[in-house]
Amino acid sequence: MKASPAPWPTVAIVGVGMIGGSIAAALRGRRLAGRVIGVGRSAASLSVAKRQGLVDEVATDVAAVAEADLVVVATGVGSIPGVLEQVDATVRPGTLLTDAGSTKKSIVAAWERRRRSRRGRFVGGHPIAGSHRRGPDAADAKLFEGRVTVVTPVAATPAADTEAVAGFWSAIGSTVFMMPPREHDRLLAITSHAPHVVAAAVAAATPADARPLTAGGWRDTTRIAAGDPDLWADILLDNAGDVAKALSRIAAVTEKILAALESGDRRRLVSLLKRAKEDRDAVGS
Amino acid sequence: MKASPAPWPTVAIVGVGMIGGSIAAALRGRRLAGRVIGVGRSAASLSVAKRQGLVDEVATDVAAVAEADLVVVATGVGSIPGVLEQVDATVRPGTLLTDAGSTKKSIVAAWERRRRSRRGRFVGGHPIAGSHRRGPDAADAKLFEGRVTVVTPVAATPAADTEAVAGFWSAIGSTVFMMPPREHDRLLAITSHAPHVVAAAVAAATPADARPLTAGGWRDTTRIAAGDPDLWADILLDNAGDVAKALSRIAAVTEKILAALESGDRRRLVSLLKRAKEDRDAVGS
Repeated sequence: MKASPAPWPTVAIVGVGMIGGSIAAALRGRRLAGRVIGVGRSAASLSVAKRQGLVDEVATDVAAVAEADLVVVATGVGSIPGVLEQVDATVRPGTLLTDAGSTKKSIVAAWERRRRSRRGRFVGGHPIAGSHRRGPDAADAKLFEGRVTVVTPVAATPAADTEAVAGFWSAIGSTVFMMPPREHDRLLAITSHAPHVVAAAVAAATPADARPLTAGGWRDTTRIAAGDPDLWADILLDNAGDVAKALSRIAAVTEKILAALESGDRRRLVSLLKRAKEDRDAVGS
Repeated sequence: MKASPAPWPTVAIVGVGMIGGSIAAALRGRRLAGRVIGVGRSAASLSVAKRQGLVDEVATDVAAVAEADLVVVATGVGSIPGVLEQVDATVRPGTLLTDAGSTKKSIVAAWERRRRSRRGRFVGGHPIAGSHRRGPDAADAKLFEGRVTVVTPVAATPAADTEAVAGFWSAIGSTVFMMPPREHDRLLAITSHAPHVVAAAVAAATPADARPLTAGGWRDTTRIAAGDPDLWADILLDNAGDVAKALSRIAAVTEKILAALESGDRRRLVSLLKRAKEDRDAVGS
Protein backbone atom coordinates (compact mmCIF):
# COMPACT_ATOMS: atom_id res chain seq x y z
CA MET A 1 0.00 0.00 0.00
CA LYS A 2 1.35 3.40 -0.93
CA ALA A 3 1.36 6.18 1.72
CA SER A 4 -1.04 8.99 0.95
CA PRO A 5 0.82 12.04 -0.34
CA ALA A 6 1.50 14.93 2.07
CA PRO A 7 -0.94 17.86 1.66
CA TRP A 8 1.94 20.15 0.67
CA PRO A 9 4.65 18.41 -1.37
CA THR A 10 7.18 21.24 -0.89
CA VAL A 11 7.00 23.95 1.77
CA ALA A 12 9.49 26.80 1.98
CA ILE A 13 9.92 28.68 5.25
CA VAL A 14 11.70 32.01 4.99
CA GLY A 15 13.17 32.87 8.39
CA VAL A 16 13.90 29.75 10.44
CA GLY A 17 13.91 31.25 13.94
CA MET A 18 11.74 30.20 16.86
CA ILE A 19 8.46 30.56 14.93
CA GLY A 20 9.72 29.37 11.53
CA GLY A 21 11.54 26.45 13.15
CA SER A 22 8.42 25.48 15.09
CA ILE A 23 6.35 25.54 11.89
CA ALA A 24 8.93 23.26 10.26
CA ALA A 25 8.88 20.94 13.29
CA ALA A 26 5.07 20.81 13.30
CA LEU A 27 4.95 20.08 9.54
CA ARG A 28 7.40 17.22 10.01
CA GLY A 29 5.76 15.87 13.16
CA ARG A 30 2.37 15.77 11.48
CA ARG A 31 3.71 14.53 8.11
CA LEU A 32 2.13 17.49 6.34
CA ALA A 33 4.97 18.26 3.93
CA GLY A 34 6.90 16.14 1.46
CA ARG A 35 9.93 18.29 2.09
CA VAL A 36 10.68 21.52 3.88
CA ILE A 37 13.16 24.09 2.58
CA GLY A 38 14.54 26.54 5.14
CA VAL A 39 15.53 29.92 3.71
CA GLY A 40 17.40 32.51 5.75
CA ARG A 41 20.20 35.05 5.86
CA SER A 42 22.26 33.35 8.55
CA ALA A 43 24.07 30.23 7.33
CA ALA A 44 24.91 29.41 10.96
CA SER A 45 21.29 29.51 12.05
CA LEU A 46 20.22 27.49 9.00
CA SER A 47 22.77 24.80 9.76
CA VAL A 48 21.39 24.53 13.31
CA ALA A 49 17.92 24.05 11.81
CA LYS A 50 19.19 21.40 9.42
CA ARG A 51 21.23 19.57 12.07
CA GLN A 52 18.16 19.46 14.33
CA GLY A 53 16.19 17.90 11.50
CA LEU A 54 13.73 20.79 11.33
CA VAL A 55 14.25 21.23 7.57
CA ASP A 56 15.36 18.96 4.71
CA GLU A 57 17.25 21.60 2.75
CA VAL A 58 18.55 25.06 3.41
CA ALA A 59 19.26 28.06 1.21
CA THR A 60 20.41 31.63 1.76
CA ASP A 61 18.93 32.69 -1.61
CA VAL A 62 15.19 33.37 -1.80
CA ALA A 63 15.32 31.81 -5.29
CA ALA A 64 14.93 28.46 -3.48
CA VAL A 65 11.21 29.16 -3.01
CA ALA A 66 10.66 28.59 -6.75
CA GLU A 67 9.99 24.91 -6.06
CA ALA A 68 7.53 25.47 -3.22
CA ASP A 69 3.78 24.82 -3.18
CA LEU A 70 3.44 26.85 0.01
CA VAL A 71 5.73 29.60 1.30
CA VAL A 72 5.61 30.83 4.91
CA VAL A 73 7.44 34.08 5.67
CA ALA A 74 8.46 34.02 9.32
CA THR A 75 11.01 36.85 9.44
CA GLY A 76 10.75 39.95 11.62
CA VAL A 77 7.84 42.28 10.92
CA GLY A 78 10.09 44.98 9.47
CA SER A 79 11.34 42.79 6.64
CA ILE A 80 8.19 40.85 5.74
CA PRO A 81 6.88 43.20 2.98
CA GLY A 82 10.26 43.19 1.21
CA VAL A 83 10.65 39.42 1.55
CA LEU A 84 7.11 38.91 0.18
CA GLU A 85 8.05 40.99 -2.90
CA GLN A 86 11.11 38.82 -3.51
CA VAL A 87 9.17 35.62 -2.91
CA ASP A 88 6.36 36.70 -5.24
CA ALA A 89 8.83 37.51 -8.00
CA THR A 90 10.15 33.94 -7.79
CA VAL A 91 7.29 31.53 -7.07
CA ARG A 92 5.28 29.61 -9.63
CA PRO A 93 1.97 31.34 -10.36
CA GLY A 94 -0.74 30.20 -7.95
CA THR A 95 1.62 29.35 -5.08
CA LEU A 96 0.06 29.82 -1.66
CA LEU A 97 1.78 32.40 0.58
CA THR A 98 1.31 33.39 4.20
CA ASP A 99 3.35 35.07 6.91
CA ALA A 100 3.70 34.93 10.68
CA GLY A 101 4.12 38.64 11.42
CA SER A 102 2.90 40.16 14.69
CA THR A 103 1.27 43.06 12.84
CA LYS A 104 -0.98 42.71 9.82
CA LYS A 105 -2.27 46.07 8.55
CA SER A 106 0.83 47.36 6.78
CA ILE A 107 2.02 43.94 5.60
CA VAL A 108 -1.34 43.10 4.00
CA ALA A 109 -1.73 46.63 2.59
CA ALA A 110 1.70 46.43 0.92
CA TRP A 111 0.70 43.15 -0.73
CA GLU A 112 -2.74 44.35 -1.77
CA ARG A 113 -1.44 47.49 -3.49
CA ARG A 114 -0.19 45.27 -6.33
CA ARG A 115 -2.71 42.42 -6.09
CA ARG A 116 -3.44 42.42 -9.84
CA SER A 117 0.13 41.69 -10.84
CA ARG A 118 0.82 39.05 -8.17
CA ARG A 119 1.96 35.53 -8.97
CA GLY A 120 1.32 34.10 -5.50
CA ARG A 121 -1.89 33.90 -3.46
CA PHE A 122 -1.16 35.63 -0.16
CA VAL A 123 -3.28 35.74 2.99
CA GLY A 124 -1.73 37.14 6.17
CA GLY A 125 -1.40 35.07 9.32
CA HIS A 126 -0.28 35.61 12.90
CA PRO A 127 0.24 32.64 15.21
CA ILE A 128 -0.18 34.07 18.72
CA ALA A 129 2.40 31.85 20.26
CA GLY A 130 5.56 33.88 20.67
CA SER A 131 7.80 34.01 23.66
CA HIS A 132 10.86 35.98 24.67
CA ARG A 133 13.01 33.10 23.41
CA ARG A 134 14.34 33.05 19.87
CA GLY A 135 16.24 31.08 17.27
CA PRO A 136 15.79 27.56 15.88
CA ASP A 137 17.04 26.14 19.20
CA ALA A 138 13.75 27.29 20.72
CA ALA A 139 11.67 25.52 18.04
CA ASP A 140 8.84 23.36 19.34
CA ALA A 141 6.62 21.12 17.20
CA LYS A 142 3.76 21.62 19.66
CA LEU A 143 4.09 25.42 19.85
CA PHE A 144 0.81 26.01 18.03
CA GLU A 145 -1.34 23.42 19.78
CA GLY A 146 -4.13 25.03 21.73
CA ARG A 147 -3.03 28.45 20.46
CA VAL A 148 -4.81 30.89 18.21
CA THR A 149 -3.65 31.91 14.75
CA VAL A 150 -5.32 34.98 13.31
CA VAL A 151 -5.82 34.84 9.52
CA THR A 152 -6.51 38.22 7.93
CA PRO A 153 -8.19 38.16 4.51
CA VAL A 154 -9.40 41.41 2.91
CA ALA A 155 -12.41 42.01 0.66
CA ALA A 156 -10.40 41.18 -2.48
CA THR A 157 -9.09 37.86 -1.11
CA PRO A 158 -10.63 34.85 -2.93
CA ALA A 159 -12.44 32.58 -0.47
CA ALA A 160 -10.39 29.62 -1.71
CA ASP A 161 -7.15 31.37 -0.74
CA THR A 162 -8.47 32.19 2.74
CA GLU A 163 -9.58 28.60 3.22
CA ALA A 164 -6.26 27.20 2.04
CA VAL A 165 -4.23 29.45 4.37
CA ALA A 166 -6.60 28.85 7.29
CA GLY A 167 -6.29 25.13 6.51
CA PHE A 168 -2.51 25.32 6.81
CA TRP A 169 -2.50 27.12 10.19
CA SER A 170 -5.15 24.78 11.46
CA ALA A 171 -3.25 21.70 10.19
CA ILE A 172 -0.20 22.57 12.34
CA GLY A 173 -2.42 22.61 15.41
CA SER A 174 -3.73 26.11 15.98
CA THR A 175 -7.27 27.38 16.25
CA VAL A 176 -7.91 29.86 13.45
CA PHE A 177 -9.64 33.18 14.05
CA MET A 178 -10.52 35.21 10.96
CA MET A 179 -10.64 39.01 11.05
CA PRO A 180 -9.65 42.05 8.99
CA PRO A 181 -6.01 43.22 9.40
CA ARG A 182 -7.12 46.48 11.05
CA GLU A 183 -9.11 44.61 13.71
CA HIS A 184 -6.16 42.29 14.36
CA ASP A 185 -3.80 45.19 14.95
CA ARG A 186 -6.25 46.99 17.22
CA LEU A 187 -6.71 43.91 19.43
CA LEU A 188 -3.04 42.93 19.47
CA ALA A 189 -2.10 46.44 20.56
CA ILE A 190 -3.85 45.80 23.87
CA THR A 191 -3.10 42.09 24.29
CA SER A 192 0.57 42.19 23.31
CA HIS A 193 2.19 45.40 22.06
CA ALA A 194 1.18 47.82 24.84
CA PRO A 195 1.88 45.22 27.57
CA HIS A 196 5.36 44.91 26.07
CA VAL A 197 5.91 48.66 26.50
CA VAL A 198 4.58 48.53 30.07
CA ALA A 199 6.80 45.55 30.96
CA ALA A 200 9.81 47.39 29.53
CA ALA A 201 8.89 50.52 31.51
CA VAL A 202 8.61 48.59 34.80
CA ALA A 203 11.96 46.88 34.18
CA ALA A 204 13.71 50.13 33.27
CA ALA A 205 12.14 52.05 36.17
CA THR A 206 13.55 49.58 38.71
CA PRO A 207 16.87 50.81 40.13
CA ALA A 208 19.71 48.29 40.42
CA ASP A 209 19.67 48.46 44.24
CA ALA A 210 16.06 47.20 44.26
CA ARG A 211 16.80 44.10 42.18
CA PRO A 212 17.54 41.78 45.14
CA LEU A 213 14.04 42.56 46.44
CA THR A 214 12.23 41.41 43.29
CA ALA A 215 10.21 38.22 43.41
CA GLY A 216 7.75 36.32 41.21
CA GLY A 217 5.43 39.31 40.72
CA TRP A 218 8.09 41.58 39.26
CA ARG A 219 9.55 38.73 37.23
CA ASP A 220 6.21 37.83 35.68
CA THR A 221 5.24 41.43 35.01
CA THR A 222 8.52 42.26 33.27
CA ARG A 223 9.27 38.91 31.57
CA ILE A 224 8.47 40.02 27.99
CA ALA A 225 10.82 42.97 28.34
CA ALA A 226 13.57 40.40 27.70
CA GLY A 227 12.34 40.10 24.10
CA ASP A 228 14.54 41.16 21.17
CA PRO A 229 14.68 45.01 21.03
CA ASP A 230 15.02 45.15 17.22
CA LEU A 231 12.10 42.83 16.51
CA TRP A 232 9.93 44.66 19.04
CA ALA A 233 10.86 48.12 17.79
CA ASP A 234 9.59 47.11 14.35
CA ILE A 235 6.35 45.69 15.74
CA LEU A 236 5.68 48.77 17.86
CA LEU A 237 6.56 51.23 15.10
CA ASP A 238 4.35 49.38 12.64
CA ASN A 239 1.37 49.63 15.01
CA ALA A 240 2.21 52.94 16.69
CA GLY A 241 -1.29 54.44 16.49
CA ASP A 242 -3.07 51.51 18.10
CA VAL A 243 -0.29 51.04 20.65
CA ALA A 244 -0.61 54.68 21.72
CA LYS A 245 -4.38 54.22 22.14
CA ALA A 246 -3.91 51.03 24.16
CA LEU A 247 -1.32 52.73 26.37
CA SER A 248 -3.71 55.55 27.08
CA ARG A 249 -6.42 53.04 28.08
CA ILE A 250 -3.93 51.47 30.50
CA ALA A 251 -2.88 54.91 31.78
CA ALA A 252 -6.54 55.81 32.36
CA VAL A 253 -7.09 52.75 34.60
CA THR A 254 -3.79 53.43 36.39
CA GLU A 255 -4.94 57.00 37.05
CA LYS A 256 -8.22 55.74 38.52
CA ILE A 257 -6.38 53.38 40.87
CA LEU A 258 -3.94 56.13 41.82
CA ALA A 259 -6.78 58.57 42.54
CA ALA A 260 -8.46 56.03 44.86
CA LEU A 261 -5.09 55.42 46.49
CA GLU A 262 -4.26 59.08 47.03
CA SER A 263 -7.69 59.94 48.38
CA GLY A 264 -7.56 56.89 50.67
CA ASP A 265 -10.81 55.59 49.16
CA ARG A 266 -10.48 51.92 50.12
CA ARG A 267 -13.90 50.91 48.81
CA ARG A 268 -13.19 52.36 45.39
CA LEU A 269 -9.70 50.83 45.33
CA VAL A 270 -11.02 47.36 46.22
CA SER A 271 -13.68 47.69 43.54
CA LEU A 272 -11.10 48.61 40.87
CA LEU A 273 -8.77 45.76 41.91
CA LYS A 274 -11.74 43.36 41.95
CA ARG A 275 -12.69 44.27 38.42
CA ALA A 276 -9.08 43.78 37.29
CA LYS A 277 -8.96 40.41 39.03
CA GLU A 278 -12.16 39.33 37.26
CA ASP A 279 -10.69 40.39 33.92
CA ARG A 280 -7.52 38.47 34.68
CA ASP A 281 -9.32 35.39 36.00
CA ALA A 282 -11.44 35.29 32.82
CA VAL A 283 -8.35 34.34 30.85
CA GLY A 284 -6.83 31.60 33.04
CA SER A 285 -3.29 30.99 34.17
CA MET B 1 20.80 9.42 72.93
CA LYS B 2 18.38 12.24 73.44
CA ALA B 3 17.50 14.45 70.45
CA SER B 4 18.76 18.00 70.76
CA PRO B 5 15.95 20.38 71.68
CA ALA B 6 14.35 22.47 68.92
CA PRO B 7 15.59 26.09 68.82
CA TRP B 8 12.06 27.34 69.57
CA PRO B 9 10.08 25.05 71.90
CA THR B 10 6.74 26.67 71.08
CA VAL B 11 6.01 28.85 68.05
CA ALA B 12 2.66 30.55 67.49
CA ILE B 13 1.69 31.67 64.00
CA VAL B 14 -1.17 34.12 63.81
CA GLY B 15 -2.77 33.90 60.35
CA VAL B 16 -2.28 30.46 58.82
CA GLY B 17 -2.72 31.34 55.14
CA MET B 18 -0.23 30.72 52.35
CA ILE B 19 2.64 32.51 54.13
CA GLY B 20 1.79 31.47 57.70
CA GLY B 21 1.19 27.89 56.55
CA SER B 22 4.50 27.83 54.70
CA ILE B 23 6.31 29.09 57.81
CA ALA B 24 4.68 26.29 59.80
CA ALA B 25 5.65 23.73 57.16
CA ALA B 26 9.25 24.99 57.07
CA LEU B 27 9.52 24.89 60.89
CA ARG B 28 8.28 21.31 60.90
CA GLY B 29 10.36 20.21 57.92
CA ARG B 30 13.52 21.58 59.51
CA ARG B 31 12.63 20.45 63.08
CA LEU B 32 12.99 23.99 64.34
CA ALA B 33 10.00 24.04 66.70
CA GLY B 34 8.89 21.74 69.50
CA ARG B 35 5.29 22.52 68.64
CA VAL B 36 3.50 24.98 66.41
CA ILE B 37 0.23 26.64 67.39
CA GLY B 38 -1.87 28.05 64.54
CA VAL B 39 -4.05 31.01 65.47
CA GLY B 40 -6.66 32.43 63.13
CA ARG B 41 -10.16 33.75 62.73
CA SER B 42 -11.41 31.04 60.38
CA ALA B 43 -12.01 27.69 62.09
CA ALA B 44 -12.40 26.11 58.63
CA SER B 45 -9.04 27.36 57.45
CA LEU B 46 -7.39 26.31 60.74
CA SER B 47 -8.79 22.82 60.45
CA VAL B 48 -7.31 22.54 56.94
CA ALA B 49 -3.95 23.57 58.41
CA LYS B 50 -4.25 21.00 61.19
CA ARG B 51 -5.42 18.20 58.88
CA GLN B 52 -2.46 18.88 56.58
CA GLY B 53 -0.14 18.57 59.56
CA LEU B 54 1.12 22.14 59.25
CA VAL B 55 0.37 22.91 62.91
CA ASP B 56 0.07 20.82 66.08
CA GLU B 57 -2.69 22.86 67.70
CA VAL B 58 -5.14 25.49 66.56
CA ALA B 59 -6.94 28.33 68.32
CA THR B 60 -9.28 31.13 67.30
CA ASP B 61 -8.36 33.12 70.43
CA VAL B 62 -5.12 35.12 70.42
CA ALA B 63 -4.76 34.15 74.11
CA ALA B 64 -3.16 30.94 72.80
CA VAL B 65 0.07 32.84 72.13
CA ALA B 66 0.69 33.06 75.91
CA GLU B 67 2.64 29.80 75.72
CA ALA B 68 4.83 30.80 72.79
CA ASP B 69 8.56 31.54 72.73
CA LEU B 70 8.24 33.06 69.27
CA VAL B 71 5.15 34.59 67.63
CA VAL B 72 4.92 35.26 63.90
CA VAL B 73 2.06 37.47 62.72
CA ALA B 74 1.24 36.54 59.15
CA THR B 75 -2.14 38.18 58.69
CA GLY B 76 -2.97 40.84 56.06
CA VAL B 77 -1.10 44.13 56.35
CA GLY B 78 -4.20 46.03 57.45
CA SER B 79 -4.67 43.97 60.60
CA ILE B 80 -1.05 43.44 61.68
CA PRO B 81 -0.75 46.48 64.04
CA GLY B 82 -3.96 45.52 65.87
CA VAL B 83 -2.94 41.86 66.11
CA LEU B 84 0.49 42.85 67.43
CA GLU B 85 -1.21 44.88 70.20
CA GLN B 86 -3.30 41.87 71.20
CA VAL B 87 -0.32 39.54 71.04
CA ASP B 88 1.84 41.87 73.10
CA ALA B 89 -0.83 42.13 75.76
CA THR B 90 -0.77 38.32 76.11
CA VAL B 91 2.76 37.02 75.69
CA ARG B 92 5.25 36.34 78.43
CA PRO B 93 7.69 39.25 78.83
CA GLY B 94 10.72 38.82 76.53
CA THR B 95 8.90 36.75 73.88
CA LEU B 96 10.29 37.25 70.40
CA LEU B 97 7.81 38.69 67.84
CA THR B 98 8.01 39.25 64.11
CA ASP B 99 5.57 39.69 61.24
CA ALA B 100 5.40 38.88 57.54
CA GLY B 101 3.68 42.03 56.27
CA SER B 102 4.38 43.39 52.78
CA THR B 103 4.81 46.92 54.15
CA LYS B 104 6.92 47.86 57.13
CA LYS B 105 6.91 51.62 57.85
CA SER B 106 3.50 51.95 59.50
CA ILE B 107 3.59 48.53 61.21
CA VAL B 108 6.96 49.20 62.81
CA ALA B 109 6.02 52.81 63.68
CA ALA B 110 2.86 51.63 65.45
CA TRP B 111 4.92 49.21 67.54
CA GLU B 112 7.67 51.71 68.30
CA ARG B 113 5.27 54.39 69.57
CA ARG B 114 4.84 52.31 72.73
CA ARG B 115 8.21 50.54 72.85
CA ARG B 116 8.79 51.34 76.55
CA SER B 117 5.71 49.52 77.73
CA ARG B 118 6.07 46.46 75.49
CA ARG B 119 6.26 42.91 76.84
CA GLY B 120 7.46 41.33 73.59
CA ARG B 121 10.58 42.00 71.53
CA PHE B 122 9.38 42.84 68.02
CA VAL B 123 11.41 43.24 64.84
CA GLY B 124 9.54 43.53 61.52
CA GLY B 125 10.06 41.04 58.72
CA HIS B 126 8.93 40.60 55.13
CA PRO B 127 9.57 37.34 53.32
CA ILE B 128 9.54 38.30 49.63
CA ALA B 129 7.96 35.11 48.49
CA GLY B 130 4.32 35.79 47.88
CA SER B 131 2.25 34.65 44.97
CA HIS B 132 -1.27 35.23 43.74
CA ARG B 133 -2.30 31.98 45.49
CA ARG B 134 -3.62 31.99 49.02
CA GLY B 135 -4.74 29.86 51.93
CA PRO B 136 -3.09 26.97 53.80
CA ASP B 137 -3.65 24.74 50.74
CA ALA B 138 -0.95 26.77 48.99
CA ALA B 139 1.54 26.28 51.85
CA ASP B 140 4.99 25.11 50.80
CA ALA B 141 7.81 24.14 53.19
CA LYS B 142 10.35 25.26 50.61
CA LEU B 143 8.70 28.63 49.89
CA PHE B 144 11.50 30.62 51.50
CA GLU B 145 14.48 28.74 50.12
CA GLY B 146 16.56 30.93 47.86
CA ARG B 147 14.27 33.88 48.63
CA VAL B 148 14.98 37.11 50.46
CA THR B 149 13.45 38.15 53.77
CA VAL B 150 13.86 41.78 54.71
CA VAL B 151 14.27 42.40 58.44
CA THR B 152 13.66 45.99 59.51
CA PRO B 153 15.14 47.05 62.86
CA VAL B 154 15.07 50.70 63.94
CA ALA B 155 17.59 52.68 65.99
CA ALA B 156 15.92 51.61 69.25
CA THR B 157 15.95 47.89 68.43
CA PRO B 158 18.43 45.95 70.61
CA ALA B 159 21.00 44.13 68.47
CA ALA B 160 20.11 40.85 70.19
CA ASP B 161 16.48 41.16 69.05
CA THR B 162 17.51 41.88 65.47
CA GLU B 163 19.85 38.90 65.49
CA ALA B 164 17.23 36.58 66.93
CA VAL B 165 14.59 37.58 64.37
CA ALA B 166 17.10 37.45 61.52
CA GLY B 167 18.12 34.02 62.82
CA PHE B 168 14.53 32.81 62.60
CA TRP B 169 13.98 33.97 59.00
CA SER B 170 17.32 32.56 58.03
CA ALA B 171 16.61 29.24 59.77
CA ILE B 172 13.52 28.64 57.61
CA GLY B 173 15.66 29.02 54.50
CA SER B 174 15.66 32.65 53.40
CA THR B 175 18.51 35.08 52.87
CA VAL B 176 18.13 38.02 55.23
CA PHE B 177 18.55 41.61 54.10
CA MET B 178 18.56 44.25 56.80
CA MET B 179 17.32 47.78 56.18
CA PRO B 180 15.23 50.52 57.82
CA PRO B 181 11.44 50.20 57.34
CA ARG B 182 11.35 53.35 55.17
CA GLU B 183 13.95 51.95 52.78
CA HIS B 184 12.06 48.66 52.56
CA ASP B 185 8.82 50.39 51.61
CA ARG B 186 10.54 52.60 49.02
CA LEU B 187 12.13 49.59 47.30
CA LEU B 188 9.07 47.37 47.51
CA ALA B 189 6.96 50.11 45.92
CA ILE B 190 8.92 49.66 42.70
CA THR B 191 9.55 45.89 42.86
CA SER B 192 6.06 44.83 43.91
CA HIS B 193 3.38 47.39 44.71
CA ALA B 194 3.52 49.57 41.58
CA PRO B 195 3.89 46.49 39.30
CA HIS B 196 0.70 45.20 40.90
CA VAL B 197 -1.15 48.39 39.95
CA VAL B 198 0.26 48.21 36.41
CA ALA B 199 -0.72 44.55 36.04
CA ALA B 200 -4.24 45.36 37.24
CA ALA B 201 -4.46 48.28 34.80
CA VAL B 202 -3.40 46.12 31.84
CA ALA B 203 -5.93 43.44 32.79
CA ALA B 204 -8.76 45.93 33.27
CA ALA B 205 -7.91 47.83 30.06
CA THR B 206 -8.27 44.67 27.96
CA PRO B 207 -11.74 44.40 26.46
CA ALA B 208 -13.49 41.02 26.63
CA ASP B 209 -13.40 40.63 22.83
CA ALA B 210 -9.59 40.76 22.89
CA ARG B 211 -9.23 37.94 25.44
CA PRO B 212 -9.01 35.10 22.88
CA LEU B 213 -5.99 36.87 21.38
CA THR B 214 -3.98 36.94 24.59
CA ALA B 215 -0.93 34.70 24.90
CA GLY B 216 1.97 34.17 27.27
CA GLY B 217 3.06 37.81 27.26
CA TRP B 218 -0.29 39.17 28.45
CA ARG B 219 -0.68 36.33 30.93
CA ASP B 220 2.72 36.94 32.49
CA THR B 221 2.31 40.70 32.59
CA THR B 222 -1.10 40.53 34.29
CA ARG B 223 -0.63 37.43 36.49
CA ILE B 224 -0.37 39.27 39.83
CA ALA B 225 -3.64 41.10 39.11
CA ALA B 226 -5.29 37.84 40.20
CA GLY B 227 -4.15 38.55 43.78
CA ASP B 228 -6.65 39.17 46.57
CA PRO B 229 -8.17 42.69 46.15
CA ASP B 230 -8.66 43.27 49.89
CA LEU B 231 -5.12 42.28 50.86
CA TRP B 232 -3.68 44.38 48.03
CA ALA B 233 -5.83 47.41 48.78
CA ASP B 234 -4.37 47.44 52.29
CA ILE B 235 -0.80 47.09 51.03
CA LEU B 236 -1.21 49.87 48.46
CA LEU B 237 -2.99 52.23 50.85
CA ASP B 238 -0.33 51.68 53.49
CA ASN B 239 2.42 52.63 51.03
CA ALA B 240 0.50 55.13 48.90
CA GLY B 241 3.21 57.80 48.75
CA ASP B 242 5.99 55.49 47.57
CA VAL B 243 3.63 53.68 45.20
CA ALA B 244 2.65 56.99 43.59
CA LYS B 245 6.33 57.86 43.13
CA ALA B 246 7.12 54.45 41.64
CA LEU B 247 4.15 54.75 39.28
CA SER B 248 5.38 58.10 38.08
CA ARG B 249 8.83 56.61 37.40
CA ILE B 250 7.14 53.92 35.31
CA ALA B 251 4.98 56.51 33.56
CA ALA B 252 8.08 58.57 32.74
CA VAL B 253 9.73 55.62 30.98
CA THR B 254 6.48 54.78 29.20
CA GLU B 255 6.29 58.38 27.97
CA LYS B 256 9.84 58.18 26.62
CA ILE B 257 9.03 54.99 24.70
CA LEU B 258 5.80 56.51 23.43
CA ALA B 259 7.59 59.66 22.26
CA ALA B 260 10.12 57.58 20.31
CA LEU B 261 7.23 55.57 18.88
CA GLU B 262 5.17 58.56 17.81
CA SER B 263 8.09 60.39 16.25
CA GLY B 264 9.13 57.19 14.46
CA ASP B 265 12.59 57.40 16.05
CA ARG B 266 13.62 53.74 15.65
CA ARG B 267 17.14 54.23 16.99
CA ARG B 268 15.87 55.84 20.18
CA LEU B 269 13.16 53.18 20.56
CA VAL B 270 15.66 50.32 20.17
CA SER B 271 17.95 51.98 22.69
CA LEU B 272 15.14 52.30 25.27
CA LEU B 273 14.02 48.69 24.73
CA LYS B 274 17.65 47.52 24.98
CA ARG B 275 18.13 49.25 28.30
CA ALA B 276 14.90 47.67 29.60
CA LYS B 277 16.04 44.25 28.38
CA GLU B 278 19.36 44.67 30.19
CA ASP B 279 17.52 45.63 33.38
CA ARG B 280 15.27 42.59 33.00
CA ASP B 281 18.08 40.21 32.11
CA ALA B 282 20.02 41.35 35.20
CA VAL B 283 17.42 39.65 37.39
CA GLY B 284 17.06 36.26 35.65
CA SER B 285 13.99 34.26 34.73
